[in-house]
Amino acid sequence: MDFRSDNVSGAHPAIIDAIAAANHGTAAAYGDDDWTRRLAQRFADLFERPVTVMPVATGTAANALALATFTPPWGSIFCHAGAHINVAECGAPDFYSGGARLVAIDGAHGKLSPAAVEGAIQREGDVHANQPAAISISQATEIGTVYRTDEIAALAEAAHRHRMILHVDGARFANAVVGAGKTAAELTWKAGVDALSFGATKNGCLAAEAIVLFTPPSPERPSELALRRKRGGHLLSKSRFLAAQLEAYLTDDLWLRNARHANAAARRLAVGLERALGVAPAEPVEANEIFIALGGAVANALRAAGFLFHDWPGIGEGGARLVTSWATTDEEVDALVGAAGRARGAS
Amino acid sequence: MDFRSDNVSGAHPAIIDAIAAANHGTAAAYGDDDWTRRLAQRFADLFERPVTVMPVATGTAANALALATFTPPWGSIFCHAGAHINVAECGAPDFYSGGARLVAIDGAHGKLSPAAVEGAIQREGDVHANQPAAISISQATEIGTVYRTDEIAALAEAAHRHRMILHVDGARFANAVVGAGKTAAELTWKAGVDALSFGATKNGCLAAEAIVLFTPPSPERPSELALRRKRGGHLLSKSRFLAAQLEAYLTDDLWLRNARHANAAARRLAVGLERALGVAPAEPVEANEIFIALGGAVANALRAAGFLFHDWPGIGEGGARLVTSWATTDEEVDALVGAAGRARGAS
Amino acid sequence: MDFRSDNVSGAHPAIIDAIAAANHGTAAAYGDDDWTRRLAQRFADLFERPVTVMPVATGTAANALALATFTPPWGSIFCHAGAHINVAECGAPDFYSGGARLVAIDGAHGKLSPAAVEGAIQREGDVHANQPAAISISQATEIGTVYRTDEIAALAEAAHRHRMILHVDGARFANAVVGAGKTAAELTWKAGVDALSFGATKNGCLAAEAIVLFTPPSPERPSELALRRKRGGHLLSKSRFLAAQLEAYLTDDLWLRNARHANAAARRLAVGLERALGVAPAEPVEANEIFIALGGAVANALRAAGFLFHDWPGIGEGGARLVTSWATTDEEVDALVGAAGRARGAS
Amino acid sequence: MDFRSDNVSGAHPAIIDAIAAANHGTAAAYGDDDWTRRLAQRFADLFERPVTVMPVATGTAANALALATFTPPWGSIFCHAGAHINVAECGAPDFYSGGARLVAIDGAHGKLSPAAVEGAIQREGDVHANQPAAISISQATEIGTVYRTDEIAALAEAAHRHRMILHVDGARFANAVVGAGKTAAELTWKAGVDALSFGATKNGCLAAEAIVLFTPPSPERPSELALRRKRGGHLLSKSRFLAAQLEAYLTDDLWLRNARHANAAARRLAVGLERALGVAPAEPVEANEIFIALGGAVANALRAAGFLFHDWPGIGEGGARLVTSWATTDEEVDALVGAAGRARGAS
Repeated sequence: MDFRSDNVSGAHPAIIDAIAAANHGTAAAYGDDDWTRRLAQRFADLFERPVTVMPVATGTAANALALATFTPPWGSIFCHAGAHINVAECGAPDFYSGGARLVAIDGAHGKLSPAAVEGAIQREGDVHANQPAAISISQATEIGTVYRTDEIAALAEAAHRHRMILHVDGARFANAVVGAGKTAAELTWKAGVDALSFGATKNGCLAAEAIVLFTPPSPERPSELALRRKRGGHLLSKSRFLAAQLEAYLTDDLWLRNARHANAAARRLAVGLERALGVAPAEPVEANEIFIALGGAVANALRAAGFLFHDWPGIGEGGARLVTSWATTDEEVDALVGAAGRARGAS
Repeated sequence: MDFRSDNVSGAHPAIIDAIAAANHGTAAAYGDDDWTRRLAQRFADLFERPVTVMPVATGTAANALALATFTPPWGSIFCHAGAHINVAECGAPDFYSGGARLVAIDGAHGKLSPAAVEGAIQREGDVHANQPAAISISQATEIGTVYRTDEIAALAEAAHRHRMILHVDGARFANAVVGAGKTAAELTWKAGVDALSFGATKNGCLAAEAIVLFTPPSPERPSELALRRKRGGHLLSKSRFLAAQLEAYLTDDLWLRNARHANAAARRLAVGLERALGVAPAEPVEANEIFIALGGAVANALRAAGFLFHDWPGIGEGGARLVTSWATTDEEVDALVGAAGRARGAS
Repeated sequence: MDFRSDNVSGAHPAIIDAIAAANHGTAAAYGDDDWTRRLAQRFADLFERPVTVMPVATGTAANALALATFTPPWGSIFCHAGAHINVAECGAPDFYSGGARLVAIDGAHGKLSPAAVEGAIQREGDVHANQPAAISISQATEIGTVYRTDEIAALAEAAHRHRMILHVDGARFANAVVGAGKTAAELTWKAGVDALSFGATKNGCLAAEAIVLFTPPSPERPSELALRRKRGGHLLSKSRFLAAQLEAYLTDDLWLRNARHANAAARRLAVGLERALGVAPAEPVEANEIFIALGGAVANALRAAGFLFHDWPGIGEGGARLVTSWATTDEEVDALVGAAGRARGAS
Repeated sequence: MDFRSDNVSGAHPAIIDAIAAANHGTAAAYGDDDWTRRLAQRFADLFERPVTVMPVATGTAANALALATFTPPWGSIFCHAGAHINVAECGAPDFYSGGARLVAIDGAHGKLSPAAVEGAIQREGDVHANQPAAISISQATEIGTVYRTDEIAALAEAAHRHRMILHVDGARFANAVVGAGKTAAELTWKAGVDALSFGATKNGCLAAEAIVLFTPPSPERPSELALRRKRGGHLLSKSRFLAAQLEAYLTDDLWLRNARHANAAARRLAVGLERALGVAPAEPVEANEIFIALGGAVANALRAAGFLFHDWPGIGEGGARLVTSWATTDEEVDALVGAAGRARGAS
């Protein structure tokens, strides 16, 4: 029973089926196929307006390509200290942008505030300093919280005031949409978001993400994102298999059904652990992640019983991160809660 | 009937089956899974010695990462003017290496010669000039020929004499192995090759290539390739699905069976066209590509009849590139040959 | 007696005097000083219109910064195979642009032609290939010839037709102005030039060049060149000493007087050698460089007599490059001619 | 009277004299001249051992080139939050290293501690994170303090334990040597320093710094620093004028005499202001910079009286940075102290 991450789960059967279904006959390579072409309309429907959509196979690629398209080499990208781009991508945004600088900022609940960003802007307009280029937030955040639309709008307003763009790392965007009870449009361009890494892998795909631009890159370089993707080695030859995943992901709301399932599992787990241990999660459980101080004895007992999860020091003894996914079952949740309760009783 | 490229074909059913079979239970992300771990032994068996093997999803990524690992920003990479890295990757090697320079060299039959490379080395040891770092050859070449082992060994010898490495872009490596009648080991490290982009996508995978190093990177930076891959956004989270493809590809010689099929189809096509048109291919057909001057009328008639292929100007009127794959049927080949014969008769 | 290059000469005394004269009192650092401020007007006068002018200490920096400002990482820069940026800057344009690619083209008399450039453009608009960004020519060329204004205008027209800019590496711009008998304006923006590396070091400065833009960079990034210069480490703190050199260089036409002197010395040398050896220079002597096949015996004799110059293989036996400068004296020229004549008589 | 920075002062007359003296005859370009060659011995004498020494024209270039030589693109460079490389070089180290990341750390008195650095190292050995490559300290620091040799040794020990190098940004190295009362050797390699940006411009040169390596770069790339310098456009053609400055700077201890003068002026200013205002500097005055809360009225009065200095918010009302140089006179110091005393009396 594996709560290490949502990406330890496999792909939803509908995704595998879609890949198999796409595996008939020949199709033009490098995105010039019907599946990829249909994505434009699919994402236009999803976001209630035309968008630029470009599929890639990893979230790191989506983030780095999206940010590089708007960030010159001398730019600064403001993000939360715990942001995936800051701590878990081996400097991919730095690489793709040609050496732009990430400015890591702390903030409660894994969130950036406009004031904190503006406080971190230094020497704007001064040739000796990196210049503001982008704010990047994670939605859902890395600690399982979800930005409200007014929080996003305030960040977008701050970004645009300083001629920056607002990027959203949506590796868990579906979980955020479900958690916020808002539409994809409301959580993005309607609140001022310029670019989104639309994650799908963690929520049931095999390997598929989409870069979604609401604001086009420089009019002088209309193909910039496509060129950057190819140059980065992220244009798949048999592109239909990437598009087919995304198409199935959006069909019949699979993406929302998966996310609802994962979020519900997280809530069930949070409620169960609080009841069993008398300990509330360290952060609001608004998506599919729980951060909780299990206590050392309980944490050890769970590990001994075969439950897999990551340590999360700093929130108390036996601090743990528990992540649920589209594939997490009630039985798994209840088994963990039960084991935790027994361990606590024994201690 | 589609002869545009081998990457217009889908994936071999055994590859889809392997993906579906891997889709059970959870698995550690980012390559720390059983499927990925097994690749080390699989590739050691294949190459008859331990190697570094690192799967990625695209050939461009494989080439750029392999080359960047051995090429400093001020390095030169010597390649054929028609090399994929030179004309079809939007500068990916330049990007990944931090701005190294490709030196494009002409050569008969799509091949580099040691003399041509050495003639192109300028100002070795001179701080004003880019310094030799790598020779990169395509095997099979971009025009369907195959380097012999002695040709490879001579290039390796030249490379090492100038402290360069020899890299092989093996997007069609299986076709070369079959075409050459040699083992994978004989065509690589036994002939002095330092690094190989081991292609699998064109020959039946969905999206899977392997970077194979026979010579380790700098001892001071043992993890360089792994770090570069992550930083480039090419480390897949659900890595098992990449490894499962490669595993199935090597199982029961699927890779060789597919390549034998494709190469045989190309030969059948070449023989048929020569008989039907009285025109020999412009280059020896040693792998799965044919370059032939069909004549304008025949080319037009084939297009009108629905046959898809790329124009290849410069080899005569109606110059065409015809590529076969693991999925090309004798019926398709014979249909094209028949249509060509009829078109010629009519003209 | 040293004919190796114009940069083996020291600085003109007026330049040293100007530096000493600027060395009084304090001045704001990093270009916010009176000397630097005055350059805007000086260069506006010189070019008969407002320009962006930015001093740096080396020609390589000027070229790389100017080109990077207009060339995205996936861009191509078309230049002559013998261009300084291609063979003598260790890949500086590649580095500054983030990995753009130089496309080296041959051409008679060290010059590019529009047809040759257009023939080298491949896959324009194709995401798999580097995209046209700039044409860069050297004026005077690396072999001592000078582009006529109509030749420049034709290249500019070709550049702009493909949405490229035309850059001039003017390391020997003064020699070209004198050689062409045209104004600085006529040789640049009036003929369609977008950016100029205005050289001064070779022609009498200590270390001073100016990047001159006639076309501004992207309106979205008005400070791009200034930021790139700082980021490249090319913004001098005691900037007044750079500006003072350029100011003195332009005062009382010192730059033209120096170039006239150097060009005249080259002509005197060419005429003298032709008379003494019966051999004409291999290229028209339009600036301050002579390329001539001295014959092996003469070349050896000159070397033995202490004359310094570079071998220039490929133009005949005893091929040599002889460069004159603002400091070359008639005595030095005549001594070389005399020695050559004697050596020929003796052989 | 200008206390804005030490780089608002001109060059020491001996430096101008040395340039003028070097301006005779021709000399091979690009560092192959006698002046440049002599630097090896000069710096060997200075540091009591052979070193690699490479002159450049700016401190930003020295820092960026030195750091890039030891920092791979995926490396981390640990520095103080106030470090020049972090706040005042527009990302030059990021650019030269190919996108390495600066990790900014706070610390009392402008200094890094080993514990703070080790606390900032995250995910060492983890492919998802930038990997430790260098610690960079400023000596003297940006707030006028000086690292003691035991502090340096402790940092070097921490650096080497994590396979990092220790770099010193010595823009004010002379002031530190004087302030610490130690030799150049004691403050560098004897304490474990691997690379030094040896500043000279701020302390009396026109534009001259030297990169000094005590630890060679990778044995596989012995010329790496030289190639990086050329590629960055920092190899001057008339290199003798750079070397002549450094030679004069070291002759007869000019560098130490200048620094002693500047440091003494700073102390005189500190003592005077403390006496006049009853306010001690915010930081120990160990080199040539004073940070002091003048009070708003005094600050305003000084500005009105024509004294130039930079605001330094955060240390109290009227916070100011006052910098002295080799050219600061006792009269200037006393005038400022007198004006401050009068302003205080009036308020």
